[in-house]
Amino acid sequence: MAVPLDRIRIVLCAPSHPGNVGATARAMQAMGVSRLVLVNPQRFPDAEADALASGAVAVLHAAEVVTTLDAALAGAVLAIGFSARPREFAATVLPVRAAAAEALRYAQAGDVALVFGHEMSGLSNAELARCQIVATIPTDPAFASLNLAAAVQVAAYELRVAAHGGAVWQAPAFEPATQDEIAQLFAHAERALIALAFLRRAHPKRLLPRLRRLFARARLEKEEVNILRGILARIEERLGQGERSGK
Amino acid sequence: MAVPLDRIRIVLCAPSHPGNVGATARAMQAMGVSRLVLVNPQRFPDAEADALASGAVAVLHAAEVVTTLDAALAGAVLAIGFSARPREFAATVLPVRAAAAEALRYAQAGDVALVFGHEMSGLSNAELARCQIVATIPTDPAFASLNLAAAVQVAAYELRVAAHGGAVWQAPAFEPATQDEIAQLFAHAERALIALAFLRRAHPKRLLPRLRRLFARARLEKEEVNILRGILARIEERLGQGERSGK
Repeated sequence: MAVPLDRIRIVLCAPSHPGNVGATARAMQAMGVSRLVLVNPQRFPDAEADALASGAVAVLHAAEVVTTLDAALAGAVLAIGFSARPREFAATVLPVRAAAAEALRYAQAGDVALVFGHEMSGLSNAELARCQIVATIPTDPAFASLNLAAAVQVAAYELRVAAHGGAVWQAPAFEPATQDEIAQLFAHAERALIALAFLRRAHPKRLLPRLRRLFARARLEKEEVNILRGILARIEERLGQGERSGK
Repeated sequence: MAVPLDRIRIVLCAPSHPGNVGATARAMQAMGVSRLVLVNPQRFPDAEADALASGAVAVLHAAEVVTTLDAALAGAVLAIGFSARPREFAATVLPVRAAAAEALRYAQAGDVALVFGHEMSGLSNAELARCQIVATIPTDPAFASLNLAAAVQVAAYELRVAAHGGAVWQAPAFEPATQDEIAQLFAHAERALIALAFLRRAHPKRLLPRLRRLFARARLEKEEVNILRGILARIEERLGQGERSGK
């Protein structure tokens, strides 16, 4: 199941800043996308690229350098070009999320290239014409300017979620309270609140339902029920002591 | 409807690299998230931050600087802390997409803070304890290292998609062909292919269905039908000339 992302290549056309190449490599490696192709990079390899890769040197040092977009696309069954601005000759235009899904669908059949243009000017019309799909990242129309590596980051993130379903680390394991433990907790709470004279048995009003709602949202753990019952027991104990010492 | 994103604030705890602060401002501005709060930044303001904001100086120069996380969270009804690694005391853990949806739900009621930790060490346990939700970005477990601004980029992107439904620019307007124009095109194609002796009337086999399938996927435009019929007419014309000149 790890195969689909292995079939994705990220193609940067004429990147001018080595820092962007390094940051792109890092963005890719964090998402498990490892094949980077550079078409006529202005400077490569470069110390600044290494610095911004920040450990993602495996992707960076394995990058292929080619001199034409044709060479970068060789063997790919689908090319998806990224463009922030509307383009006259665009064929199919998809938001990046839908484009990532389409990329993975084609990755069943072969290699897929995601193509990014120059930092300032983006993909040329000739470059875009080589792509079957134009992908675009939703942005604020008033400032639709993503950094190159940031655009690759969003695209690689969507590829990862499409491939792996957005699995993330889980909250630590815990033991949930049983329903009868929770029922006993509320019975105990009612006794203690009556003893406190905060709750009147004849006029319970909405207090207990509100507390039930609060703890339902929290979904109590066994240990938390024990802590809360400990507090209730201490209240009852001190009230008993208070009454005794008051007499 | 623009209100929800206005109620989101991005909080950076003790960022050490001014470049990350600038890149964060750019990531936010591209997604229409404008409120940045810096808790004890190592250097701010800073020329490197301005350089990496790359035009997003509105967000950067409006950033608030405070000395405690409490001050950064003042007035917020929900705080969502980001952590790449599993944390022992995490309450609710959500992938960034679900966390963005929850952020917007709470933004109906008040301000929501998205909290990011130090570049190297992330959020401390004390900082994370101030957050009701821990959000995490799906990554390759083998290299779960996102740049700070890249993490903010993904989070702000998910906020924008959650708020605005991922609307992007559309393919240019075009006039689709009508079904009868398409039927006439295929009738014309059949005549021309028979004239070319590529198609035999007695054994049509699967040729026409395959061509229909190809053009169905492409969803023909009126102008494309005209171009294709022009080519077909030219074929018929040249075949007629060829036959005449051959005699």
